[in-house]
Parts: sequence; C-alpha cells; structure tokens
Amino acid sequence: MKETILSGMQPSGELHIGNLECALRNWARLQDDYNMYCCIVDWHTLTADYKETGVLKERVYQMAVDYMSAGLDPEKCAIFVQSDVKEHAELHLIFSMLITVPTLTRLPTFVEKQEQKGLDSYGFLGYPVLQAADICIYNAHKVPVGKDQEKHIWLAADIAKRFNNTYGETFIEPKVLLTPIPLIPGTDNRKMSKSYNNHLPIAATEEDTTARLKKMYTDPEKLRKNDPGHPEKCPVFQLHRIYTPGAENDIAPPCRTGELGCVECKQKLAANMNNSLRPIREKRVELEKQPDYIWDVLKDGGNRARKTAQEVMEKVRTAMKMKYWK
Amino acid sequence: MKETILSGMQPSGELHIGNLECALRNWARLQDDYNMYCCIVDWHTLTADYKETGVLKERVYQMAVDYMSAGLDPEKCAIFVQSDVKEHAELHLIFSMLITVPTLTRLPTFVEKQEQKGLDSYGFLGYPVLQAADICIYNAHKVPVGKDQEKHIWLAADIAKRFNNTYGETFIEPKVLLTPIPLIPGTDNRKMSKSYNNHLPIAATEEDTTARLKKMYTDPEKLRKNDPGHPEKCPVFQLHRIYTPGAENDIAPPCRTGELGCVECKQKLAANMNNSLRPIREKRVELEKQPDYIWDVLKDGGNRARKTAQEVMEKVRTAMKMKYWK
Repeated sequence: MKETILSGMQPSGELHIGNLECALRNWARLQDDYNMYCCIVDWHTLTADYKETGVLKERVYQMAVDYMSAGLDPEKCAIFVQSDVKEHAELHLIFSMLITVPTLTRLPTFVEKQEQKGLDSYGFLGYPVLQAADICIYNAHKVPVGKDQEKHIWLAADIAKRFNNTYGETFIEPKVLLTPIPLIPGTDNRKMSKSYNNHLPIAATEEDTTARLKKMYTDPEKLRKNDPGHPEKCPVFQLHRIYTPGAENDIAPPCRTGELGCVECKQKLAANMNNSLRPIREKRVELEKQPDYIWDVLKDGGNRARKTAQEVMEKVRTAMKMKYWK
Repeated sequence: MKETILSGMQPSGELHIGNLECALRNWARLQDDYNMYCCIVDWHTLTADYKETGVLKERVYQMAVDYMSAGLDPEKCAIFVQSDVKEHAELHLIFSMLITVPTLTRLPTFVEKQEQKGLDSYGFLGYPVLQAADICIYNAHKVPVGKDQEKHIWLAADIAKRFNNTYGETFIEPKVLLTPIPLIPGTDNRKMSKSYNNHLPIAATEEDTTARLKKMYTDPEKLRKNDPGHPEKCPVFQLHRIYTPGAENDIAPPCRTGELGCVECKQKLAANMNNSLRPIREKRVELEKQPDYIWDVLKDGGNRARKTAQEVMEKVRTAMKMKYWK
C-alpha cells in the first residue's frame, strides 16, 4: 500500500518560483508514488493576521490554480482547503493537551516571529500544534518540507508518540522528507520571499520576469563585463542550475574567464526560465477561467480528505475511550 | 423570544450537594424562562488530566443522571456532551487568534492552578478560550456561574466583542448570571469539593449523609452542648439556611442561648437534608437503570445543540468571508 504524504501552504498571496521549485514541482513528482493530501492552510494564515480575511477567498482560488498548473492532478491527490475539514480543529484541540507551553515558546520560529512581528496570540503560539493535527489527521508518513520546518515535524512526531504511549497505537509518527531544492535566492540575494519584494512570480509575464532578472544582484566582484566572475557566489547562477541544463559546463566557465557578461548571462536565464514556466503559465491562464471547475476540485478534495479525517478521528475517540456510543 | 443560557460542568466524578444547590437546581429553575443548553464538558477535563480518560464514559453517564434527577428536563433543555459537537473545537481554534498569551497567563485561575498542580499544557492555558467557544457557539446571552468564574465570562465577552469589531456583528456578548447560592461549605468548613474529601455526595445513602454531617466542623467556641454558639460562623448553620425552612427563627436563637446542642442541630439538618434530597435520589435510582434512555437523551441533546452550533458557525464563516462556496 502507498504511504501517505501531507503537504500544505498558506494562501498568503501570489506564489513565486521559490514556491514552485522548492515545493509544488516536488509535490507533483511525489503524487504518483504516494497517497497525497495537498492542503491550502487558510486557518494558519490567521495566526499571523486574523484581520485581513477578506483577501482569503481570492487567494485560496489562486493557490488552487497554482497547485494544478504546477502539475498537481486532482485525480491523483486531494487538493482541499483546511477550514473545510473541521476535524483539523478537533484534533488540534486534543493535541493541545499533549504539549506544554514552554515547549512551544522555546521553538526558534516562535521566538523569531514574536520578536520580528510582535505576534503573541494564543493561536500563533499553537501554530505547530495545528500543524501536527494537519499531518496526523491523515496519518501521514511523510511531510515534504525545507530544513527550517524540520523542528515542527519532529514536534508533530513527538505529539503522535505521546498520544500513542498514552492511549495506545493510533498515529504514525510522521517523518521529514527534505525537499531536493531547499531554497531559492531572490533578486536581492536573500531568500526569495514576497515580503522582501525580491521574488519572481509564477504568474508574471515573460517581459516582467526578464525585467526583474535584469535588476538581479550578481557577483559584486564582477564589475565590468570582462571581469572574471564567481558563479558559486552568484544567485543568478543558482537559478541557472535549475533552469539551464548543462549550466556547469556552458555558463560557469565563460563567466569565470570573463567571456560571459552579466547582461548576456541574465538574458539566457530569462529565456530558459520563461521556457520552463511557459506550460505552467499557459495552464494557469486556462484554469483561471474555470471557476466552477476549480471550486469543484476543492469541494471534492475536501470530501475525500474529510472521509479520511473522520476515520482517523473515530480511531482517536476509540483509543481515548471517548466514543460513548455507537 | 427567549434568551439563551449555556451552562456546563466537568464530568469529574461524583456530584455533591454543592454542585446541586449552587448549579443544578438553579439551572432547573431557569429552564422554563430560557432556551437552555446544559453541557457536560468532557474536553475540559483533559486540560487538568489528559491521561485518565478511561473513567469518562461512566462519569458522563452519571452526570447526565445527576442533571436529570435534579430536575433538568430533556424536553425543555438540550443536555449533551461537548465532544459530540465538534463546532466547539472549530470556534475555539478561531477564537485562539483573538486573544493574546499574556492575557491568558495573567488570569488568576491559571496562575493558581499552575502553581498548585503544575499544569502547563497548551490546552490548559487555553481553558478560557474553549469556555468562550462553548458559550458563543450557542450565542448565549447569559451564563450562570459563581463569582470565581466571573472573569472567564468577561473574557468570553471580550473575545465576542473583538470578533464583532473585526468581522461585523455576529456574537452576543455573554453576561454573568450570578448563582443565588454562591458557595457551600464542606464538612471541614472549606469550600465543598470532592478533592478535599469534605463533600456530601448527592447519591449517598441517608445513613452516610447523616454520618458525614455528624463529623462536620462546627463553631469552635461551642465546646459543650450548653455553650452559647455563633451560627453565623458555623458551616452547619449555612446548610440549615438551605435545608431548614425558618432556620433563622428555629435554629439560630436556641444555638446562641446554648439551648440547642451541636449533636441535635446536626440531626435536624440531616433529617431535613435527606428529606430534600429524597425525591432526587429516588429519581436517580430510577434513571440509573435506564442506560438506553440516558444515552438517547444525550444523543438527541447533541443533535439539537449541533444544529444551533452549525448555524452559528455558518454566520462566523460568512462574517469572516471564509465561506468560499455555497
């Protein structure tokens, strides 16, 4: 029998090629070999900002379009919205008894975001508890994430284990499935992120992508075209590695010798990136025009996810001896 | 239209006359004038002890028997189990975004129990958030509680208000309905509580009740029968006030003059208390023998509660613009 994977992303707006290469394309590769649940985790967005919910409907819609354009196939995996399966909230409540406040306040992600953004809601503190419920409600074996999320998956495994030790074997302890491409640099050489405005949106036009790449940070030691460059330090080359087959042989050597200037190098990258994104963008345009279909996919995905989630909750209630009647 | 009341109690074991006089009989009086929801809050018991869930089924059952013996009428009010209506968990998750961790850690009940019992689970910290959801999921106008719970109801009102201010008028801000009998002394003159083992169980035999009263703490200045007593300082007299009509005229004066000794005073109380409890005890014995009926009452109560809870959740999703499709 196939193992189960849970993956998910917050509908926090326009997706970029970091989301595509580090997550979506990876998920699409996994959907043939695993029983996949691809969740749009809208409740999680409330932990960072509970006020701006008016944007969620459009963002959920666009995220479903992004998921499918990137190759997630609703026939192969359940694509659904977290808040459509209230069992996530039910398990979250039960899990909240199995973890201490100090464990949560010590998590680096909590400390960091609390300091940076002043987040201090009870729900924000419980972010990893909800994440654990998201995973365990499908009894997922694996969760494809980057290094920065590893601790959260370990925590989910800890909670699952504590549940099992207390009430009897019920949950699989989920494991991290490290994403092959861990990180993509943005145009300013920091991690690509919409909040830094250094991102390359999936849905951008080819012209816009080319223009954004044109302004991208490069090796600061290569001031003029013929200066020798250092591809290993240059974020443009990191992107070549993804989008230009044979980049190690065709791009790196002429950059090092000074034969290849940054302008030309970026033009090549823009062409290759746009080529790679073209089928996704075309599918995006097609899908975006079919709202009935998109919402139907989400409804259907929710129904399938809910079925599993309800089965798992039945096991949970039975294990806890809180199933008082048939 | 009738206003709505939410009341609830943890199924933490054998109920005593404190629970009866301070809560259950009061609820029974209210059920004619209000739209009542009487909840057995089993999830809340997990905040204090998540491990011992094996006892819950029997305790839930006995609590339903207690509710009904004390006069709660399943035709008039919904008697149900919290975990049977998962919308409590759903609203709890949403409310968890609307309250800060410092607000919760500053609550006196949290500080006290954390110090006394070392409770530090995330769920225990969120106790008042779940309570707020319990109340607001029925859009209750009032909650009958004692002084010690007042702050929690205010907090629920604060959360309801914050929700309304953020997303538009949705919730009624619940109000405290102070219970007419705020507190009953136990046999050792502390607050009556099973955990102090100073309680008088509703379900005890008349002999046992009489025996427990016999050992009850009295005015320490009345050492011999004929010493003048101080009824206002004596917990036995507090109970006379409840169970002996005309206690101010018939019990207090002869106690003060030394005419009435403690032994006789306690015998009178035992007789009156047993008389008052007799119909409840008889009904208890009858009901306890009808498990199918009891569980049916709870199932039916759950269905009725769920219907309201789902309607309120629909309003919540609509207000938050998180109802993405019909």
